[in-house]
Amino acid sequence: MTKEELFSIRIKQPSPEIYRKSKERWDHLAKPIDGLGVLEKIVSRIAAASGRVCPDTDKKALIIMCADNGVTQEGISQTGHDVTLSVASLMGDKKSSVGSMARNYPVDFFVYDVGIDSQNTPQGVTDAKIRRGTRNFLKEPAMTLKECLAAIQTGIGAAGKCRDEGYGIIATGEMGIGNTTTSTALLCAVKGLDPKEYTGRGAGLSDEGMRNKIRVIEEGLRLHIRPNEYDGITSKEEALEALTRLGGLDIAGLVGVFIGSAKVGIPVIIDGLISAVAALLADRIVPGCRDYMIASHLGREKGMQVILDDLGLDGIINADLALGEGTGALLMLTMLDMAMSLYLSGTFFDETQIEQYERFDG
Amino acid sequence: MTKEELFSIRIKQPSPEIYRKSKERWDHLAKPIDGLGVLEKIVSRIAAASGRVCPDTDKKALIIMCADNGVTQEGISQTGHDVTLSVASLMGDKKSSVGSMARNYPVDFFVYDVGIDSQNTPQGVTDAKIRRGTRNFLKEPAMTLKECLAAIQTGIGAAGKCRDEGYGIIATGEMGIGNTTTSTALLCAVKGLDPKEYTGRGAGLSDEGMRNKIRVIEEGLRLHIRPNEYDGITSKEEALEALTRLGGLDIAGLVGVFIGSAKVGIPVIIDGLISAVAALLADRIVPGCRDYMIASHLGREKGMQVILDDLGLDGIINADLALGEGTGALLMLTMLDMAMSLYLSGTFFDETQIEQYERFDG
Repeated sequence: MTKEELFSIRIKQPSPEIYRKSKERWDHLAKPIDGLGVLEKIVSRIAAASGRVCPDTDKKALIIMCADNGVTQEGISQTGHDVTLSVASLMGDKKSSVGSMARNYPVDFFVYDVGIDSQNTPQGVTDAKIRRGTRNFLKEPAMTLKECLAAIQTGIGAAGKCRDEGYGIIATGEMGIGNTTTSTALLCAVKGLDPKEYTGRGAGLSDEGMRNKIRVIEEGLRLHIRPNEYDGITSKEEALEALTRLGGLDIAGLVGVFIGSAKVGIPVIIDGLISAVAALLADRIVPGCRDYMIASHLGREKGMQVILDDLGLDGIINADLALGEGTGALLMLTMLDMAMSLYLSGTFFDETQIEQYERFDG
Repeated sequence: MTKEELFSIRIKQPSPEIYRKSKERWDHLAKPIDGLGVLEKIVSRIAAASGRVCPDTDKKALIIMCADNGVTQEGISQTGHDVTLSVASLMGDKKSSVGSMARNYPVDFFVYDVGIDSQNTPQGVTDAKIRRGTRNFLKEPAMTLKECLAAIQTGIGAAGKCRDEGYGIIATGEMGIGNTTTSTALLCAVKGLDPKEYTGRGAGLSDEGMRNKIRVIEEGLRLHIRPNEYDGITSKEEALEALTRLGGLDIAGLVGVFIGSAKVGIPVIIDGLISAVAALLADRIVPGCRDYMIASHLGREKGMQVILDDLGLDGIINADLALGEGTGALLMLTMLDMAMSLYLSGTFFDETQIEQYERFDG
């Protein structure tokens, strides 16, 4: 895929008519108006995105992008980069954290190696390795444009495959030691934020580790982002360039998943910070992707709220999560199941003796 | 049950040793420290409350208390009191909102009629009717002490029955037109709050309806709460008296469920405002009950945060829910299942190549 091909992708706006009909369906169900609150709105967005008043989200996919980050050379993580391979191997067996959580839950895992720093791809993981980890962005751009586009294309392809196989909803996840550093750098670049305020402890850092992580992000921004962009990035070109220079292959892969999901009309759930940064970039690179996105949680990293506000999405889980792998998106899926169950199989007012509630908010 | 018998109930403190061991178990799982955030803490509280490092919460009960409120005579709800009976009838068939949500979810419903204003109790609902609705608290106390104690005893008995039948976790729910009015009055009495600030629209009220609801709550407080109590209630005696005078039989029944769950050592999930007010009263009447409580959501009603802060609990779902029936507690159950799945069946660091993360927060 060339840059031009990427930029030429157009996203169809979800049907306002289906959204309206879906809201009507909610109001005819025997319950207080807006009783399920934000969940009602989310289900109606899923309906509109799917193009059906009664969408079928029974078949669920979790797409996980795994890659290493050259910037771990700067000591920005408590653990070595080899943990990426170890956890990805567990993922292939459904034995990583998200796999254990989904033990009794019907979701299919699609784990991609887009850039683990290893000779081989672990069993159960799809080999889509572009290179063995990115370059250290303090020394040179993390990726070439070609590498970045290849990772995006892998993500678009993963979403397309889900469409072909009849999946109704996609959750996103990632694994890559160092990726709270890359995603925070990208967040600060795109939104024009100060790393001092938006850098978090990732999977756990000492105070000294935190100071170093902030320094690395600040230097990365100085090296790769033009000063006049410190106010934030809105153009496709600049967003793609920032991703190429500061990003990870995992983030680029997820950018592709968000673009691909919107392209084929499947609602897609954002997980934590890394996934959210990918969602933000996807919508900058291919405007309109946001209409297919569902937020899940607010995470522990401060940047989450900034991103969800930018995308106009509501994160309804507030549990200080910081696990990644798609664990928060999975928690959201299980709540959505219950909301969908009421939406699809609930009792309507006209099947009861109860008079429909009146809407006073216009 | 006499007042003295109620006041003499003692709650055993959950084991700090089991809590500590449970936290250790979390830290040995191959994931970032505190990765599941508040959910880790909640699971450890469940372990301590259950008295087992690895508690069994597979068998789940949802206890729903249904009753009518005499204060509906004052026009504080959009719908007539007959809706309580209609919805309770649907609950008996698992066709009300919470029933539709639980369609594919393994939870057993125990619906109690503690005071529906009807000749008969609907099918599928346990007949524990104390009287046909409470009295209008603008004219006289809503209940006699005897009636209130009977409702509490029903709740305690319901929790005890769950213990006997091997349930590992209890969720709470209610149905009773007018019960956001009774519970807001109780909240304002117990916490010394101004009804103007804490009255919500319940199942949907016009502006005029809201003004009337606030007036009714203010008058109720003036009639039944001694001026020197406007700063809030801390004593057992006063808490029970407020419940008797302003409460509903549904709230009293739930107070019993919270007390009973703590007494038999089963963790119990709070739903929305009505359930939360019952939790608050339970802990005032029998101190220590709070240690067995799990919060679920923050709801749309403003008082929720005040109550959860008082009880020291975290509501992790923030979705503007206003449905009742236990719907929020059910959403919490399904997330807890996933957290428990990781906790019980996750991979430990020493089964992997990965070195355990270090804890820097002491």
